[in-house]
Amino acid sequence: MDLLQLKKEVFRANLKLVDLGLVTLTWGNVSAIDRTEGLIAIKPSGIDYDVMAVEDIVVVDLDGKVVEGKYRPSSDTPSHIELYKAFTEIGGISHTHSKYATMFAQAHMEIPCFGTTHADYFYGTIPLARTLTEEEVNEGYEKYAGRAIIEKFKSIDPITMPGVLLSSHAPFTWGKDAMESVKHSFILERIAEMSLGTLQLNQDCNSVEQYILDKHYKRKHGPNAYYGQK
Amino acid sequence: MDLLQLKKEVFRANLKLVDLGLVTLTWGNVSAIDRTEGLIAIKPSGIDYDVMAVEDIVVVDLDGKVVEGKYRPSSDTPSHIELYKAFTEIGGISHTHSKYATMFAQAHMEIPCFGTTHADYFYGTIPLARTLTEEEVNEGYEKYAGRAIIEKFKSIDPITMPGVLLSSHAPFTWGKDAMESVKHSFILERIAEMSLGTLQLNQDCNSVEQYILDKHYKRKHGPNAYYGQK
Amino acid sequence: MDLLQLKKEVFRANLKLVDLGLVTLTWGNVSAIDRTEGLIAIKPSGIDYDVMAVEDIVVVDLDGKVVEGKYRPSSDTPSHIELYKAFTEIGGISHTHSKYATMFAQAHMEIPCFGTTHADYFYGTIPLARTLTEEEVNEGYEKYAGRAIIEKFKSIDPITMPGVLLSSHAPFTWGKDAMESVKHSFILERIAEMSLGTLQLNQDCNSVEQYILDKHYKRKHGPNAYYGQK
Amino acid sequence: MDLLQLKKEVFRANLKLVDLGLVTLTWGNVSAIDRTEGLIAIKPSGIDYDVMAVEDIVVVDLDGKVVEGKYRPSSDTPSHIELYKAFTEIGGISHTHSKYATMFAQAHMEIPCFGTTHADYFYGTIPLARTLTEEEVNEGYEKYAGRAIIEKFKSIDPITMPGVLLSSHAPFTWGKDAMESVKHSFILERIAEMSLGTLQLNQDCNSVEQYILDKHYKRKHGPNAYYGQK
Repeated sequence: MDLLQLKKEVFRANLKLVDLGLVTLTWGNVSAIDRTEGLIAIKPSGIDYDVMAVEDIVVVDLDGKVVEGKYRPSSDTPSHIELYKAFTEIGGISHTHSKYATMFAQAHMEIPCFGTTHADYFYGTIPLARTLTEEEVNEGYEKYAGRAIIEKFKSIDPITMPGVLLSSHAPFTWGKDAMESVKHSFILERIAEMSLGTLQLNQDCNSVEQYILDKHYKRKHGPNAYYGQK
Repeated sequence: MDLLQLKKEVFRANLKLVDLGLVTLTWGNVSAIDRTEGLIAIKPSGIDYDVMAVEDIVVVDLDGKVVEGKYRPSSDTPSHIELYKAFTEIGGISHTHSKYATMFAQAHMEIPCFGTTHADYFYGTIPLARTLTEEEVNEGYEKYAGRAIIEKFKSIDPITMPGVLLSSHAPFTWGKDAMESVKHSFILERIAEMSLGTLQLNQDCNSVEQYILDKHYKRKHGPNAYYGQK
Repeated sequence: MDLLQLKKEVFRANLKLVDLGLVTLTWGNVSAIDRTEGLIAIKPSGIDYDVMAVEDIVVVDLDGKVVEGKYRPSSDTPSHIELYKAFTEIGGISHTHSKYATMFAQAHMEIPCFGTTHADYFYGTIPLARTLTEEEVNEGYEKYAGRAIIEKFKSIDPITMPGVLLSSHAPFTWGKDAMESVKHSFILERIAEMSLGTLQLNQDCNSVEQYILDKHYKRKHGPNAYYGQK
Repeated sequence: MDLLQLKKEVFRANLKLVDLGLVTLTWGNVSAIDRTEGLIAIKPSGIDYDVMAVEDIVVVDLDGKVVEGKYRPSSDTPSHIELYKAFTEIGGISHTHSKYATMFAQAHMEIPCFGTTHADYFYGTIPLARTLTEEEVNEGYEKYAGRAIIEKFKSIDPITMPGVLLSSHAPFTWGKDAMESVKHSFILERIAEMSLGTLQLNQDCNSVEQYILDKHYKRKHGPNAYYGQK
């Protein structure tokens, strides 16, 4: 994939976050990776969406060195890099402070799978990564944020669970490319909103049965999927 | 009724769900039946609303066999078929994952009739169909979802109660045609939203008195209705 | 005032309720009275806002007899008539099923004055009219709904308290003319929404001090008002 | 700065409050100060945003005397004046009755720092100014409202904490100019909304660790900031 194409995809995906109401002000960023070249295209830091152009998208390598672009990359770039290194099958990452997912992150709560909307896209409880220590925050806040996610995913498959909440912070989601990571942000936000309401109605609500989770997730994903067109 | 007309109605009703904010992504479907021919027009599975055209609407018979259309029908088609077979007076069915109705479904809660907005359209508590067993899920998930609804309606009249919640899933509504089923989806969603707020204010809130339910429902429906124009 | 002018005002006020998001479907109605002639202009029953025209507005006298218009008047007309007879200083009435005010009505709760937004327009607790008896419902539902409001206002001044909640139903508001009654519906809805949140944060929250209620209400109303322009 | 320029900024900032959904009806006002001249430009009292023009903006001195403009200034002008006198580094002030911040003010609750969205802009708990006494309300309500804020800020830096809640009332925010005060109103509202949800999920939720608060605030502010472009 050529770099300009990657930058265009990242540009469009960043604007899509705004269109979907998931980002206000500059509270979000999307990146995508070219696995062949080991290069990441990402939103510049603190630039308004209203004035951002394709050429403002910054390209960095996997050491965080800027290889193209006149701006500093998103301050969250080290988190993205850690995730790309550890989750080798993903192609795009989104970070937002979307309202409902952030409420769960701030409340230090994972999101149990309360229904089939959730089961269709996230295979089980949406995990919460731990609070960073003072040493981690001071030594490399954004890098260690990425590592806390990876630590949490030791026994979770990032392909079947394409998102996470950071304690006291907000969500990250990912996917096969930039736009799919945005789609997962959107779905996570809707799931979080419906889970809040579910808990307000029934604070002892249980997760769905394992066989329903399996059925719904596998109806849409994997070799026996039958949702959608062939 | 000719088939093209039925497909047009189903097409418009599906788009109406999106306009009303009841469906995002591909999370919903509407169908309608031609009772003379025993044919059902329904949304194709997983097709984006943005690109869907009238000719993409799929026509199936009551055995689920596609008789017209190049796409697979909605994966929920077996649920629709079961309902058309059992509820012989209905002409259209809508399924959505609308936010507030889904919260009640996920919380495994029926919606009591807390007020006259509800009583005007749904004659009593909006029922909740039971969770399917593992055998049912594996043998024919969508078919048994329809049957669980029918089981619940053994002693409920689907004409005076044009909707239901599926446990851990979301609502189905129906009506005399496709567009009326959409209208009932819209009203159910509003009722669910107001019922959540009602319970937040007063968790021990009782249903309305039977004579108020009777008055309101019959003000709009049946031989002595006097709401609206003659 | 000539009748056409009154009908135009009622027409515009009804559409304003829709614009403000206070009414969906046909769940609302506004009326206004010509006190000299004793004639009331009101929305026709069950007519869609999209197709309603000025000439569709119905004119009735204080006995409920239609004196102009080809449609039946709103089924809530008898409630409006009772209010106009009892509250001789008001000129317009609005009825909606707006979401948050209806939540309080369904929860059988009055709305305490929790802050200055409320105190600026409603002088104290927004009252709740009692549930009607079975006899009242059967004998003249809408007439007795109006009378239950009047009963509640025995010791409340309808000028300083321009609205009420009907138990298990929804709000009525009024004002010097049709448009002011709509404005009061809008403010009541906002107050109800903020009161729900206030109670979620602090379920034992007290009303504002009497001297703050006095200060705010009188800053905007009466001989010593100093808010706005002279 | 010339006065016309100041009035234009105040005009635009007032309209921005409406665009952002923070103000409805006339429930809000923005001012800005020219520190050299000691003159404040502020919204006229009770004028609709739809018809307000740049020349309607009122200019007052620090004694509250109108020096330019044909209208009365906002009834909240004495509050603004007190704040400009005490907080000598600020250049603009916004007052709204935005929904979620007002819920906290009405519930008499400060807003703890539950996450990094908050920590990025407000350095710690958003304070609540006390209820005024009856004497204060009668003697000079709006002036004493300003003084109650200043009293609360005895040991709080208004530069790192650019906003406050008034008990039973609503928020004030400020910044280096009119538009920054509007931005802080917007962020405060979002923080309040997410804090309400956080508390609904976890009513015993703690504030973020001090080192996370420090890290986030200082990432965006002060000599070692590294967020955004140089």
